[in-house]
Amino acid sequence: MDIAIALFPGFTALDAVGPYEVLARLPGYTVTFVGDELGPVRSDTGRLCVQVEARLDDLPNPAVILVPGGPGQADQMDNQRLLDWIRHAHETTAWTTSVCTGSLLLGAAGVLDGKRATSYWLALEQLQSFGAQPTSQRVVIEGKVITAAGVSAGIDMALTLAGLIAGDVVAQRLQLAIEYDPQPPFSAGSPATAPDEVVRYLRDRSRFVLQG
Amino acid sequence: MDIAIALFPGFTALDAVGPYEVLARLPGYTVTFVGDELGPVRSDTGRLCVQVEARLDDLPNPAVILVPGGPGQADQMDNQRLLDWIRHAHETTAWTTSVCTGSLLLGAAGVLDGKRATSYWLALEQLQSFGAQPTSQRVVIEGKVITAAGVSAGIDMALTLAGLIAGDVVAQRLQLAIEYDPQPPFSAGSPATAPDEVVRYLRDRSRFVLQG
Repeated sequence: MDIAIALFPGFTALDAVGPYEVLARLPGYTVTFVGDELGPVRSDTGRLCVQVEARLDDLPNPAVILVPGGPGQADQMDNQRLLDWIRHAHETTAWTTSVCTGSLLLGAAGVLDGKRATSYWLALEQLQSFGAQPTSQRVVIEGKVITAAGVSAGIDMALTLAGLIAGDVVAQRLQLAIEYDPQPPFSAGSPATAPDEVVRYLRDRSRFVLQG
Repeated sequence: MDIAIALFPGFTALDAVGPYEVLARLPGYTVTFVGDELGPVRSDTGRLCVQVEARLDDLPNPAVILVPGGPGQADQMDNQRLLDWIRHAHETTAWTTSVCTGSLLLGAAGVLDGKRATSYWLALEQLQSFGAQPTSQRVVIEGKVITAAGVSAGIDMALTLAGLIAGDVVAQRLQLAIEYDPQPPFSAGSPATAPDEVVRYLRDRSRFVLQG
């Protein structure tokens, strides 16, 4: 069974690689990075390239699709090849998933209409333009559509998905395999817990705000 | 200031990309993936390549080095070019760091002699062969050497390091930027919390055990 993770220039690497690390270990599944063209795709921070190893058209009907986000998402909102691929694949997927602002691409493809969904905390309200109900949760499951909050939330989403696909014991094996026993040294991972000055700093400077 | 992350075939992608996502956002620092040769390096799970963009010799004296782990670490234990690079760079680094079994490479380079250190939970005892004291903690700081436990622990390590380098407020901004508010759907991320059958399953099948 195929799992396709769609890459595009300016994606956020951890959005894709966090879930990859879980899903690549899922028995019976093969993960492939897909994109418009084969070869290296540079992530948002400019210093990391992941290889695209199949074209979107090479994998039209994967069992699972995952769309990451990142500042590059804005430039993809009129990439009809990508949006058509999402729309078409979604007709036959078992699970259609996103991380961070990847949910805005699911939205633009028409997948989120009338559904609860989440996104990067600074982009959450943008989901409304696609008929979705912004839902401030780490992972939102609506039928076969699963959206995750920002960046690192993809790891939690992938473990949730692994449990849904293969059962809790398999998902727990994957969690221990990546020693996912998080111990953040600070309590600043959501706008609800971060100090006000930290939230304000990111709100003021976010490229998402400029692009939204 | 340069941060060099050393890649080798069979590295675990999240060991490198988790910390990358934090450190690439650290003001005043530039992260570069270094390796024996330029070009794509395939990770342990076989479906993901990250590009090496500078040779080890191109960055002999970075301010920070980070050595990831993964099953491919075993083949690097007699890669003198890599071990020499670690040894030489460590003489002038501000911080010498590892994730997962990357600590065994720091050990082989002689960096951990007499120091407390951690590693992947299944590889922890192997640290003794390098004169290190295996320490079952998520992140272990010994002078300028910081080792992290398995795979996902690199995110916690990188945030800790960001705090040491740039102060708590900057580190908190980075944590919120990657929305690192972990909510694992299971409690199975360490051998202390995972169900016995899950721990046993991985102990029995681990490539680390076979290679150790």
